[in-house]
Amino acid sequence: MNIVFVLFDNVTQLDFTGPVQFLSRLPGAKVHVVSKDGAAVKTDCGFSILPRSGFGQCLQADVLCVPGGHGVRDAIADTALVDFVRQQAKGADYITSVCTGAFILGAAGLLQGKKATCHWAYTQFLPLFGAMYQPARVVRDGNVITAGGVTSGIDFALELIAAISGEALARTIQLALEYDPAPPFGGGSLARSNHETVRHLRASVYDKAAAEMEIAIKNII
Amino acid sequence: MNIVFVLFDNVTQLDFTGPVQFLSRLPGAKVHVVSKDGAAVKTDCGFSILPRSGFGQCLQADVLCVPGGHGVRDAIADTALVDFVRQQAKGADYITSVCTGAFILGAAGLLQGKKATCHWAYTQFLPLFGAMYQPARVVRDGNVITAGGVTSGIDFALELIAAISGEALARTIQLALEYDPAPPFGGGSLARSNHETVRHLRASVYDKAAAEMEIAIKNII
Repeated sequence: MNIVFVLFDNVTQLDFTGPVQFLSRLPGAKVHVVSKDGAAVKTDCGFSILPRSGFGQCLQADVLCVPGGHGVRDAIADTALVDFVRQQAKGADYITSVCTGAFILGAAGLLQGKKATCHWAYTQFLPLFGAMYQPARVVRDGNVITAGGVTSGIDFALELIAAISGEALARTIQLALEYDPAPPFGGGSLARSNHETVRHLRASVYDKAAAEMEIAIKNII
Repeated sequence: MNIVFVLFDNVTQLDFTGPVQFLSRLPGAKVHVVSKDGAAVKTDCGFSILPRSGFGQCLQADVLCVPGGHGVRDAIADTALVDFVRQQAKGADYITSVCTGAFILGAAGLLQGKKATCHWAYTQFLPLFGAMYQPARVVRDGNVITAGGVTSGIDFALELIAAISGEALARTIQLALEYDPAPPFGGGSLARSNHETVRHLRASVYDKAAAEMEIAIKNII
């Protein structure tokens, strides 16, 4: 089984590094981390990732996973990247995204008529790609699975492992990675965070970031 | 504020990529991902990480964080790495580890007389470094904070952010990264996983891995 992660500059690295940690423990799975030209990809966290190869050397994905991040604004306009995702999706058993990676699936035409989700601050843009937003941490519609923001990629990975190889293996990998989460505070989602936290974060980050994403999306649809 | 992550080959990448995603959002924080010679570090997940610099170019850490992984067996015998951690710890406000990264702190003499934790399959080795194991996901003893296995690094990061900058900021970063975890299954810790999952995982992975870690530790203490 080939699990392909598609990277690009300014990726939110945990969108990808969460799922890859879980999915790489699947027996028989081979993880292929790829970027357009196979060169190092700058993350949002002060380090770069050296992928396994470029798109041209990548095998057909059984599981295709596209992470998000501010780099999505440029990635959706990169026809080589979007074409690669579209081509890979044709032969993949599962077509998946984390966070704003959903918009790359959307740019490739893969969300048309699909139920989907993405990071809470950007869900209003899903219909621009023909998708129907579902307020859930992980949304599955046929072989398309989309996850919410960043850390939701871990819960997505466990659901995918269970779908592929059963619940017993998912529980085993969950224990190996000691995933019995205990956030020190409640919140962490739009539904469960207090109003002041949401207001502050929109004003300081997401009002501007969402406006920039909207421009980028409207430029390509 | 300088936040320094110490990498080495065969690091369990989520030990590091979880906390770095959260801590890099601290206003005023600068993340320094370093390896001994500044060269790319192989992770356990089919890709490498290009650090910011080598040890020699690294500024004094305010927060020092050491991840774990099977590479710890070699890392604790690497005197340049252990010396770097010991030197950095002298000037750091917080000395921290995730997973078996605790043994690198231990090799540097930083766990002597300290309450600490690490990945559930290796906790029996903490006393070899003079530490007292505490069964918690995150353990703080003075300025030494140790986290359990892999994903516990995320909960650790939120606790550290709250300690440094207050709960309101921690909640804001938690929402930005949509950390309202919803594992599809219970379990994920020794206390909450079923007996069969624990037995299978010990037999297939951790009996051998722990024996190898014990040999590596006894070689250097």
